[in-house]
Amino acid sequence: MDHDIAKPQDRLAAWLAADMAAVNDLIRLRMASEHAPRIPEVTAHLVEAGGKRLRPLLTLAAARMCGYDGPFHVHLAATVEFIHTATLLHDDVVDESARRRGRPTANLLWDNKTSVLVGDYLFSRSFQLMVETGSLRVLDILANASATIAEGEVLQLTAAQDLATTEGIYLQVVRGKTAALFSAATEVGGVIAGASDAHVRALFAYGDALGVAFQIVDDLLDYGGSARAIGKNTGDDFRERKLTLPVIKAVAQASVEERAFWQRTIAKGDQRDGDLDQAMAIMARHGAMDAARQDALDWANKARVALDTLPDHPLRDMLRDLADYVVARIN
Amino acid sequence: MDHDIAKPQDRLAAWLAADMAAVNDLIRLRMASEHAPRIPEVTAHLVEAGGKRLRPLLTLAAARMCGYDGPFHVHLAATVEFIHTATLLHDDVVDESARRRGRPTANLLWDNKTSVLVGDYLFSRSFQLMVETGSLRVLDILANASATIAEGEVLQLTAAQDLATTEGIYLQVVRGKTAALFSAATEVGGVIAGASDAHVRALFAYGDALGVAFQIVDDLLDYGGSARAIGKNTGDDFRERKLTLPVIKAVAQASVEERAFWQRTIAKGDQRDGDLDQAMAIMARHGAMDAARQDALDWANKARVALDTLPDHPLRDMLRDLADYVVARIN
Repeated sequence: MDHDIAKPQDRLAAWLAADMAAVNDLIRLRMASEHAPRIPEVTAHLVEAGGKRLRPLLTLAAARMCGYDGPFHVHLAATVEFIHTATLLHDDVVDESARRRGRPTANLLWDNKTSVLVGDYLFSRSFQLMVETGSLRVLDILANASATIAEGEVLQLTAAQDLATTEGIYLQVVRGKTAALFSAATEVGGVIAGASDAHVRALFAYGDALGVAFQIVDDLLDYGGSARAIGKNTGDDFRERKLTLPVIKAVAQASVEERAFWQRTIAKGDQRDGDLDQAMAIMARHGAMDAARQDALDWANKARVALDTLPDHPLRDMLRDLADYVVARIN
Repeated sequence: MDHDIAKPQDRLAAWLAADMAAVNDLIRLRMASEHAPRIPEVTAHLVEAGGKRLRPLLTLAAARMCGYDGPFHVHLAATVEFIHTATLLHDDVVDESARRRGRPTANLLWDNKTSVLVGDYLFSRSFQLMVETGSLRVLDILANASATIAEGEVLQLTAAQDLATTEGIYLQVVRGKTAALFSAATEVGGVIAGASDAHVRALFAYGDALGVAFQIVDDLLDYGGSARAIGKNTGDDFRERKLTLPVIKAVAQASVEERAFWQRTIAKGDQRDGDLDQAMAIMARHGAMDAARQDALDWANKARVALDTLPDHPLRDMLRDLADYVVARIN
């Protein structure tokens, strides 16, 4: 494999291969339930679907970059993957989503009940894993991240369908659904390694900005990617009446007629054939997609700059490349 | 109020009134969300419905009985109430229940999405509260209790409708749905007070046995109480095809004809008018209700005996009376 041209995430995974193998072993071990065999059935469905394992890689990279050589970065990497998987299970109930990572979601294969309860099980397992690290600071960070995630999800529920949603509210939602776990993933890696406060702050800032960029890109792809490329259907957010960044920007500049269109399709949810195309035409008319794309590039740049504080390290270079790569999908 | 004849729970609440006021203040404070106003709307609906607040009382009583005079028993009492409330919200989605505590459930007033996400929010809030105590031992106990709760819920989902469910499996389910939080509530009260290992073990044993007795009584009342008395409809468990203790005992002694009845109504879920009455007649025929009642009394006795190890204290007497009171509803 040519490391210079491989995807940064693959290079991270290669560099951290031994650590990731330990994380995968720990995930399989802790996913198991002596009493409730349905649990590993459901979680294996998600885990085998081969998520990108981006969050655990961030934790491992942050810890190793800061010189950690103890065992607990593995626990923390498994913790963030468990939290992420639990969130996906609960999201599937919430979104009534039919596909996830290109496969039918757990709540179509099983039912809502299973998704809720197995998600709770993974949350409690993640909680046990982090307690094992013995670090109250790590527990504090992950408790706060969990609260931000849950708050962001509820906020998204109320902000959906509400044309008054601002870019500020969007950012809070994005922090909840994505950036809070990214920033916690990098921050706890630094904390477990005993990094300086300045380095821990830099790792937090990197994860936060990377997460925001990542989510804006995801929201843009929902109006532009193919079902095959991103494992979900184009226009899902529109059909679910979510006010993502390009829509918010287009609503802010809407003519009277356009406003009536958004009112009908998003606020009222009265959607007809051709509405998705029209939504995209309106967004194009106001340069809303381009403006959102520029925001994503700005956040990726913030992520890159945050790394400058950290000491020179091959993993730092890969994280920098990762910030570029995240936005390359829309550039 | 005559303390000798008042309900033990009321006497606990009176003795611990100042502490409970602090718990209620903390619950209201931490329930709030700056960004997502729907959260306190939903939780207030549950909290104002006036649950019995039994679990926080157990934590406060255990801590005070062991001589604690710091501030963190209040955090832990709020923690267990938050975990309990989160569990109720997720249960409502799982049970598709229409009533809870005599009022419509949150997921009928709002929707499944809100119940799932606000439950997650309360879990994460409870997590923050326990981190504030700074006690890793407390965190360990509550992490393990959370895992037992989630595992028990999944187990109940798979055990429901399965006539092969044994009393042993029932006990695991009951530990998950009730006893794990009761025992964690009393145990962390002792731990935060710095009680001896023997006293902490006794507090755990008391909470565990009380919880099992409490749940068996609840399951018995489902076949005998009135909708007004217990805030839910008689026969809910039968309609939801749950194998609770009296049914398990009756199935174990079923004739061929009775077995066909259980097969049709519970395993297949083909229920007709008059089936609930017939189920109760079959259970009566085998003395299944009486046998389950005796089990509840035995567990209440275990709870009482566990308290013997602990030093003499007015709160200890109230906890002993509480064990009697829990089973008095069926005696």
